[in-house]
Amino acid sequence: MAMRMSSLFLRTLRDNPADAELPGHRLLVRAGYIRRAAPGIYTWLPLGLKVLRKVEAIVREEMDAIGAQELTFPALLPREPYEASNRWTEYGDNIFRLKDRKDADYLLGPTHEEMFTLAVKDMYSSYKDLPLSLYQIQNKYRDEARPRAGLLRGREFIMKDSYSFDVSDEGLDASYQAHREAYIRIFDRLGFEYVIVSAMSGAMGGSASEEFLAVSEIGEDTFVRNDAGTYAANVEAVVVPTADAVDASGMPAAHVEDTPDTPTIETLVSVLNASHPRSDGREWTAADTLKNVLVMLVHPDGTREPLAIGVPGDREVDAKRLEAQVGPAEVEAFEEKDFARYPMLAKGYIGPGVLGEEKSSGIRYLLDPRIGAGSAWVTGADETGKHVLDLVHGRDFTADGTIQAAEVREGDASPDGNGVLHTARGIEMGHIFQLGRKFAEALDLKVLDENGKLVTVTMGSYGIGVSRAVAAIAEGNLDDAGLIWPRNVTPADVHVVATGKNRERDGDVFAKADELTEAFEAAGLDVIYDDREKVSPGVKFKDSELIGVPTIVVVGKSLENGIVEIKDRRTGERREVPVDSVLDEVLAEVRGATA
Amino acid sequence: MAMRMSSLFLRTLRDNPADAELPGHRLLVRAGYIRRAAPGIYTWLPLGLKVLRKVEAIVREEMDAIGAQELTFPALLPREPYEASNRWTEYGDNIFRLKDRKDADYLLGPTHEEMFTLAVKDMYSSYKDLPLSLYQIQNKYRDEARPRAGLLRGREFIMKDSYSFDVSDEGLDASYQAHREAYIRIFDRLGFEYVIVSAMSGAMGGSASEEFLAVSEIGEDTFVRNDAGTYAANVEAVVVPTADAVDASGMPAAHVEDTPDTPTIETLVSVLNASHPRSDGREWTAADTLKNVLVMLVHPDGTREPLAIGVPGDREVDAKRLEAQVGPAEVEAFEEKDFARYPMLAKGYIGPGVLGEEKSSGIRYLLDPRIGAGSAWVTGADETGKHVLDLVHGRDFTADGTIQAAEVREGDASPDGNGVLHTARGIEMGHIFQLGRKFAEALDLKVLDENGKLVTVTMGSYGIGVSRAVAAIAEGNLDDAGLIWPRNVTPADVHVVATGKNRERDGDVFAKADELTEAFEAAGLDVIYDDREKVSPGVKFKDSELIGVPTIVVVGKSLENGIVEIKDRRTGERREVPVDSVLDEVLAEVRGATA
Repeated sequence: MAMRMSSLFLRTLRDNPADAELPGHRLLVRAGYIRRAAPGIYTWLPLGLKVLRKVEAIVREEMDAIGAQELTFPALLPREPYEASNRWTEYGDNIFRLKDRKDADYLLGPTHEEMFTLAVKDMYSSYKDLPLSLYQIQNKYRDEARPRAGLLRGREFIMKDSYSFDVSDEGLDASYQAHREAYIRIFDRLGFEYVIVSAMSGAMGGSASEEFLAVSEIGEDTFVRNDAGTYAANVEAVVVPTADAVDASGMPAAHVEDTPDTPTIETLVSVLNASHPRSDGREWTAADTLKNVLVMLVHPDGTREPLAIGVPGDREVDAKRLEAQVGPAEVEAFEEKDFARYPMLAKGYIGPGVLGEEKSSGIRYLLDPRIGAGSAWVTGADETGKHVLDLVHGRDFTADGTIQAAEVREGDASPDGNGVLHTARGIEMGHIFQLGRKFAEALDLKVLDENGKLVTVTMGSYGIGVSRAVAAIAEGNLDDAGLIWPRNVTPADVHVVATGKNRERDGDVFAKADELTEAFEAAGLDVIYDDREKVSPGVKFKDSELIGVPTIVVVGKSLENGIVEIKDRRTGERREVPVDSVLDEVLAEVRGATA
Repeated sequence: MAMRMSSLFLRTLRDNPADAELPGHRLLVRAGYIRRAAPGIYTWLPLGLKVLRKVEAIVREEMDAIGAQELTFPALLPREPYEASNRWTEYGDNIFRLKDRKDADYLLGPTHEEMFTLAVKDMYSSYKDLPLSLYQIQNKYRDEARPRAGLLRGREFIMKDSYSFDVSDEGLDASYQAHREAYIRIFDRLGFEYVIVSAMSGAMGGSASEEFLAVSEIGEDTFVRNDAGTYAANVEAVVVPTADAVDASGMPAAHVEDTPDTPTIETLVSVLNASHPRSDGREWTAADTLKNVLVMLVHPDGTREPLAIGVPGDREVDAKRLEAQVGPAEVEAFEEKDFARYPMLAKGYIGPGVLGEEKSSGIRYLLDPRIGAGSAWVTGADETGKHVLDLVHGRDFTADGTIQAAEVREGDASPDGNGVLHTARGIEMGHIFQLGRKFAEALDLKVLDENGKLVTVTMGSYGIGVSRAVAAIAEGNLDDAGLIWPRNVTPADVHVVATGKNRERDGDVFAKADELTEAFEAAGLDVIYDDREKVSPGVKFKDSELIGVPTIVVVGKSLENGIVEIKDRRTGERREVPVDSVLDEVLAEVRGATA
């Protein structure tokens, strides 16, 4: 049934809504696709629901095509399975918890690994039942600290989550690959520009993991890739290779020097160059120094643990990379009161002399992999106003391990050795994980193998942000006048505008527009029909551009000469077409694009 | 794509699940349609989801056909709108409440009157925008005290809720009527035996209200109807007419008599007949006595209010009818400790002498409408062992009002004067209300009328239990062997069984079954195909009967003679058909039934 603007539940807005920051989000609100109900919680108005359903249908078709089976778990879930997997605690403040009238604990599902695992455990018992892939398209909940950007990071949102179950690692590889290929087809059909990048698996545990990012300046994720196309990774997942070991046998002994008033790398470098010139005449740079950064980890159970990170002085610790490494712990600043508890830490002059679990501070100490064995550094001497020079890693100090937490920069060497990295931003649209046996072990999902032996099942977990996809498509398909929907997800195939003022005066225009609308519908097209009376042509044109259906058919004055206008919303191109050929022309456009 | 039993996520159970009480619920679990995740919270397995989607599609089509527009509100809702309508409090323990990380209050939506009202207020401002009907099909939440009977009364469930918005009462009537007719078409298509009964509007407020009940012995609702078909009502909504006034001028004066040890109606009647015979010689019966029942009302704000109800001694107070009258207050027993606080109440001998707000107890006193003005009664004399006789209503005592709380019984006079009532049980499948202006007033939804004056909008609210419909259909369509789906909602149109043991030995059988499956699919049918190897024909037949697809095609031994069997699941009829005509025969059955 055509959506007639005279009765469609829609009110377009000329002004930008106060609570929308991004251009696509503003347009989705202004054009009447969505409305905010609470922070990070949205209502889907009729037009928005049409787009959402089209995205869902594409996802469903491609999941069905790889043999994944759809089911639907509840959104309101009992605590116990999430207790067994430890996620009840690990999620911290990020999930919504509630109690029922009997004081039993529930949560609103953030993802459903536990429930799928239990369902398979409940129903299957043999290797012969596997492989198996299951999925659902459903409301998910996360109590985001900073819900942002409309549908991009909501607190109630729609996700397709699927899970694969296999007995062997090879089976998991195959299931993972099938999902990867399905995702490629899905994102191709949705009309995104996207990249597939290596990713961290985060709170999920597991091993191999990739993200599908929509390339977008407004994305929250930063990724890097090299020119050759041999390497692409979410910045959190970049693994900088450990620097090659250097033979330190001929290096001078470490020596402490006075470096008054040098609490920062910048002041240190200038004092070094002024008072402690290098024997080979080269200038000291920040890259010659070893900066020791302290943070406080807060574990899900509330315990606080200090952590020291050593990075070359020309790099900062990247908060997101650090969080990805230490999760589910959260990272807080190391504050004055924390320093007070560790008097051996000389703020601004902290060195490896006191760091490390077996040294005086007892603070765990992790190094950036660029701090190679045998490399020499200028670093704090654990006394205000003093630094130590020629301190050699492995000879003069050791750490408790390495950590991938230093910032990754444009122009850094590609970890695969193939050229340099370029950074860009993206929106995480999909994420595929090889979960492995973590959840199956926690929930005791085992099946009998060919030899009658119980083996633990290995799982994959695969997500697509369905409501987020609508937002990402909007952000990537717009201009100053409004949205421009790709054919596959447009709320309607064609938007018919009758420019007449009212049916009495402009009977022919309305009659022809009615007739075309019916003809389009009879041909199976979805139609928005602007049949409003007493609304000026200007307002109708503006609304049609704001709403963003790709093909706009204008029935107006030229009808006297048997002419109707077809406008391409994306290119802006308008062409006059004899009224008798409009149907064929529009059908050709719609079918050509979706073929 | 055919659902192949060799890979379908399904494990049928031979034994009844411990947590299922009703036959349909047991079969839905045993046949792999649903699984319990928590009390009143269910997972939809692949087969169940197919049925659910078919029910949803029928509901959606009929709602679209009356011009209702679909949108989707969130399930997680902010407190404020529900505070404005007072439902945050009125719902008491029946809604799930939770807090977000910022300590803001939220609820899981039980119904969405408030949100729809606010959306219309947000977008519309003129009478020209109305009438408007909006709907959604969505997860709803109620924290039921006794979740029961699987999907029939869940705590997370799927509902279609719609709302109409009009400026005039006539408009509301028309919107209500349109929904009523759509509901008739929906329930006709779903294949229910149903009745439309007058209903209470309960916590919703509002005036006219009807329920669609699936007639079923296992239903929680009791309804009554007369033979002529002129009256049908949910028992809670039966309005017993007030008894005609009687001229009491010639009646004897009231007199207190000793009636030792008569704390019950039964003992009272026998003592009356033994010691206080009537002058006209008729026997005393329970119907001659006035029984005063005390209950404690608990209001949503926690305050407790005693209430006395006077009913003829041959009738009990019906808890559900009472609750429907006093809601949102809940009804609790009047306990010993409550009696202790009202020493003027002589337990077993309570009479109107102390009841009524202006009398010594201060307890509100409401009478059954059968206690007509001028009628004489035997009732308690407010002293242990004593009753008062010939106490005349209006002459000797008054009450604070009437209440429709006495039980309604088979054979009672129909309130419309047309014959007697018969009682039966049903499952509430749909409910249509004329809400009126309650929510619009609470949330200030006004539009400009034709004269430019602001008027409050009048609303209707219309619900269908979508997940409950699946359960009700199952309860009404089963036999000892399993489920028997009506054509319109079956998970598949045809269930193909290949009776061969394995593809090696019975290659022809499997090849023909494969071929038929493909032919059915090519013709647009949904197919379940039992292609399992190493599973006996007996098990396959049992599973096909348990699952309940209406048409079963068995490819087996007779294939040698060019014969395939078609079985009608409902009638049990089997017929042998030449293999070449199977497709046509099945298509005729499917299309004939759904035409």
